[in-house]
Amino acid sequence: MEFSSKLLENAVNEMSQLPGIGKRTALRLVLHMLRQPKEQTLDFTKALSTMRTEIKLCKSCHNISDTDLCDICANPNRNESIVCVVEDIRDVMAIENTSSFKGLYHVLGGKISPMDGIGPNELNISSLVEKVKLGAITELIFALGSTMEGDTTNFYIFKQIQGCNVKTSTIARGISVGNELEYTDEVTLGRSIINRIPFEASLKS
Amino acid sequence: MEFSSKLLENAVNEMSQLPGIGKRTALRLVLHMLRQPKEQTLDFTKALSTMRTEIKLCKSCHNISDTDLCDICANPNRNESIVCVVEDIRDVMAIENTSSFKGLYHVLGGKISPMDGIGPNELNISSLVEKVKLGAITELIFALGSTMEGDTTNFYIFKQIQGCNVKTSTIARGISVGNELEYTDEVTLGRSIINRIPFEASLKS
Repeated sequence: MEFSSKLLENAVNEMSQLPGIGKRTALRLVLHMLRQPKEQTLDFTKALSTMRTEIKLCKSCHNISDTDLCDICANPNRNESIVCVVEDIRDVMAIENTSSFKGLYHVLGGKISPMDGIGPNELNISSLVEKVKLGAITELIFALGSTMEGDTTNFYIFKQIQGCNVKTSTIARGISVGNELEYTDEVTLGRSIINRIPFEASLKS
Repeated sequence: MEFSSKLLENAVNEMSQLPGIGKRTALRLVLHMLRQPKEQTLDFTKALSTMRTEIKLCKSCHNISDTDLCDICANPNRNESIVCVVEDIRDVMAIENTSSFKGLYHVLGGKISPMDGIGPNELNISSLVEKVKLGAITELIFALGSTMEGDTTNFYIFKQIQGCNVKTSTIARGISVGNELEYTDEVTLGRSIINRIPFEASLKS
């Protein structure tokens, strides 16, 4: 791509560094900005740079936060003895949207994935193990995605806290609500039969 | 969407103002930035804000430029007597990529589109008409997209410069190189038959 302006070229190159945004899309977005009032672009860049420099991670659960302790950890109405282990902040948001969990979270910041060079030391695992060893946690819920990396991470943490007096559970795998059996993959369907629940219990949820 | 951080929420809101980027994609992009080194986001925001505040439009052809006169208009090797009328800078880039045009451009900044509230006064038409009336231009090539708005704009400019001593042409409409006839729409195919060219001429291009 030949640009008539170095400034434009720089902007497009920076924009196309974002995941899923190619050069053409980047150019489209940058030209859109040029058609908008100047202030709009300056608001945009200010919001992003302020966010990047001033945002904090909650020192307890590693969730993204404006303060040292995030709103969830600081909330006295949450049950501190149940901790849900998730991969990243999007999972916290997804679970919070369901309003079905009143405990705290622990954000790992990823999953163990040797292929991508991510080992246990790159994740917030040691602080979780420490918290468990302090003894205040009664249940740990593993809520990672159902992939090989997720299962590996679950198992690694499970091994680290063996011997501690804590119950561990994992979120249920099974067919989605509203789904037909014929469209469900066989592994999921198999697990949903093995991990079947008493019918009376299903009436409550 | 519930955010644990106001800074994050602002950043996602600003990001989702971009065309084609929804809240979920915006969140994904912003979280990607948080995983990158701080400097990368600051480079990104600086490139965009500098671009938006310092970029200029060429005072002759209205192309985007770092200087008062763009590289194409300032190039003494270009033929100043042929001017190609295009909608925006992307069209300039597309035509430049073909290396088949050695004249100058005139960027209108859009097409006449009453539905979107864009009339001739919102576009760089008067400066084009002035240039033509000065008499230095021998040929005007209309290279707008083949839509109703494009045709309207072509015709409006054509009417404005009537009586001036200038040849006008429009880029050829026809079947794309490499295309099969059966997949070409009937209007295009019809035009390509009406506007057929001598076979000897086609051997040269």
